[in-house]
Amino acid sequence: MAKVKRLTCMKCEKVYDRGLEIICPECGLDGILDVEYDYDEMRSSLKSRPLASRPERNIFRYVDMLPLSQPPPGMLEVGWTPLYSFPRLNAALGHEHVHIKDDTVNPSASLKDRASAVAIGMALEAGRPGIACASTGNAASSLAVLSASAGLSSYIFVPETIPKPKLYQIGACATRVFRVKGTYEDAFGVATASIGKWGWYNRNCAINPYLVEGKKTCSLEIYEQLGYKVPDWVVVSMGDGCIISGQWKAFKELELLGETDRAPKLLGVQARGCKPIVDACVECRDVTPVEANTIADSIRVGEPRNWRKALRALRESGGCAISVTDEEIVSAMLLLSREAGVFAEPAGATGLAGLRSALGQGMIGKDETVAVLITGSGLKDPSSLDGALDIADIPADVEAVARHMRSQGKGAGG
Amino acid sequence: MAKVKRLTCMKCEKVYDRGLEIICPECGLDGILDVEYDYDEMRSSLKSRPLASRPERNIFRYVDMLPLSQPPPGMLEVGWTPLYSFPRLNAALGHEHVHIKDDTVNPSASLKDRASAVAIGMALEAGRPGIACASTGNAASSLAVLSASAGLSSYIFVPETIPKPKLYQIGACATRVFRVKGTYEDAFGVATASIGKWGWYNRNCAINPYLVEGKKTCSLEIYEQLGYKVPDWVVVSMGDGCIISGQWKAFKELELLGETDRAPKLLGVQARGCKPIVDACVECRDVTPVEANTIADSIRVGEPRNWRKALRALRESGGCAISVTDEEIVSAMLLLSREAGVFAEPAGATGLAGLRSALGQGMIGKDETVAVLITGSGLKDPSSLDGALDIADIPADVEAVARHMRSQGKGAGG
Repeated sequence: MAKVKRLTCMKCEKVYDRGLEIICPECGLDGILDVEYDYDEMRSSLKSRPLASRPERNIFRYVDMLPLSQPPPGMLEVGWTPLYSFPRLNAALGHEHVHIKDDTVNPSASLKDRASAVAIGMALEAGRPGIACASTGNAASSLAVLSASAGLSSYIFVPETIPKPKLYQIGACATRVFRVKGTYEDAFGVATASIGKWGWYNRNCAINPYLVEGKKTCSLEIYEQLGYKVPDWVVVSMGDGCIISGQWKAFKELELLGETDRAPKLLGVQARGCKPIVDACVECRDVTPVEANTIADSIRVGEPRNWRKALRALRESGGCAISVTDEEIVSAMLLLSREAGVFAEPAGATGLAGLRSALGQGMIGKDETVAVLITGSGLKDPSSLDGALDIADIPADVEAVARHMRSQGKGAGG
Repeated sequence: MAKVKRLTCMKCEKVYDRGLEIICPECGLDGILDVEYDYDEMRSSLKSRPLASRPERNIFRYVDMLPLSQPPPGMLEVGWTPLYSFPRLNAALGHEHVHIKDDTVNPSASLKDRASAVAIGMALEAGRPGIACASTGNAASSLAVLSASAGLSSYIFVPETIPKPKLYQIGACATRVFRVKGTYEDAFGVATASIGKWGWYNRNCAINPYLVEGKKTCSLEIYEQLGYKVPDWVVVSMGDGCIISGQWKAFKELELLGETDRAPKLLGVQARGCKPIVDACVECRDVTPVEANTIADSIRVGEPRNWRKALRALRESGGCAISVTDEEIVSAMLLLSREAGVFAEPAGATGLAGLRSALGQGMIGKDETVAVLITGSGLKDPSSLDGALDIADIPADVEAVARHMRSQGKGAGG
């Protein structure tokens, strides 16, 4: 177990002792906390049990770097997802050193499982009667799936725009699902009020400071999977700003612990139709809410709540924030599918779309190593590919196949 | 590499040398071959590199038990999926010793990845210009996904009834997708003709004898994950009959190799509306085609082609074949989701539905260990839950939540 030493408000910078506070009592919803541990203790834990020696193949490999006293019992296997290097994808990108972190193979098929697993552990250790969140989908399905495995009641608030595969995954696994008329912000509001009323543990990623801790395991794995090396760039799509904050936390802590002597640059990517963090980063200002308009459902967050951590991560890393169009996102989904067989949802491939754009702009040196997070499975939102696929409708006749093959001008292997 | 020693026709029992034959030239489509290896060689390979000592965490951990000279390069990580035991699920089932083999977390989200990975390896080693199959979905998406990762062209023939998430996953990853007017059998026919015409490798599981070899890795893992013990029962849903045949092959070979001294009983499960193998088993006769009518898309196979292997497996194991209604299948999906967080498609949970029924009938002793294969993810066919889920549509108001909680008569943790 990592001993939490203090919690610092990202807004007013007031410092709190370890406790169950979720947000700064003075700043309210705007005062997201930042978790600091007793790093001396963590250092000695890593010394007595070096990372490379650990047998666990899930995020609880890092239990002594997380705010839990033990892995939550019964939990499905989360994390230790593959880090791939695909020669043909890299050739198509024109960059030799791209690594794909495939978080689509987590139990609920997204990176959010890393955060939910930690939240459920926190809720169980605090003896809460249930756990709740508002989500556009992945955080919710992740919470429903993992709570079911751990035997904790889950209450899920989703906006009415949620894609059906996500809704059904949640509906099958959760204790209660509330589909709220309105936007994500509306669902968030009613979730927060309900959490207060019934004493559930708050798994709203935009507020709960411990979820960033779960998400950091993704980059801890990248570091190990690269042979205990830090990549030059880590590329992450941004909605609330929580995932990118988690990746930065991982590398900062590895430095603090003396495991590494450098950190990567972060490339944060948003959809062109919903880029409040990118705009704030580029214009060196605070984030202001925007209208959200993109097919990338999981990052369609017009009012990101974790923007302070995200901006700090981008700034401290010396990285960059860029946006990509929905067309570029779909194109990246197809590139990743066709050259690598990794089927991502739009937000899951937004990082790759951003990388393509960054490579085109010469932002990344040709010898620099890049890790791209693929954050969620395409099975969660297949409708995003409506109209983008080339499917041949034919009668049951081999001549129809021949006609189609000829019309495509390809031989037997094309 | 395991040296294939001979191939025996399941129908006429004629024996062939290792070669590239897919089916018995005398019996045609009805003459599916059975693969035998040089087991002396395999035994010595296992002796020099015992299973427990192997570091690989994917199906190529068993490369010396497969018909390949090496793992296909570039392939996504297939297999070594978790084997869980869920106390609350087991309590709900009234049986303490149930293990859930979660094959939903394979790269394309189904067990079929095991077969596709081997087929792609065979196609690459044979220098074929592409690979093809007809499929109701999972075999096809698996082939499209894994071929993309390995850089082999894939040609997929699907029936028009295919669910959209599967179609889109295939469409994103495959080289060409042909949606064939008609049934699975129609798609199968045009695929077979096209394979002959263009020289593609034939990944039709109902025909290709090497795919059973890929599927057997699931039970090799179960054996290892149970601490090198054979379960008393292995429960498998049946469509073409290929998966159950693969499981039996695994245990028979472990016996042949001197690793184990017993094999499990098999419980083969079909949907009530499509149970040609169950009927043949119960009535001790050959399989005859039936009309197929079930929500369990992946096992909706009215004319199973691998029935001889399936019946042999059921008979030799001293097991049993039963059928379950669509209502029992949906109920099993929800049980598995709510008590374990494993979200399966209907065919994926059909084995669990069958286990419930078998337990109800007292077919399984209370001390017997059971492994149930969960063969595919619910994200692939969410529409199967239409009408089965309890989702509360509410305005963005905490009072609406309170009314719903009261109407359900539950407190904060219910």
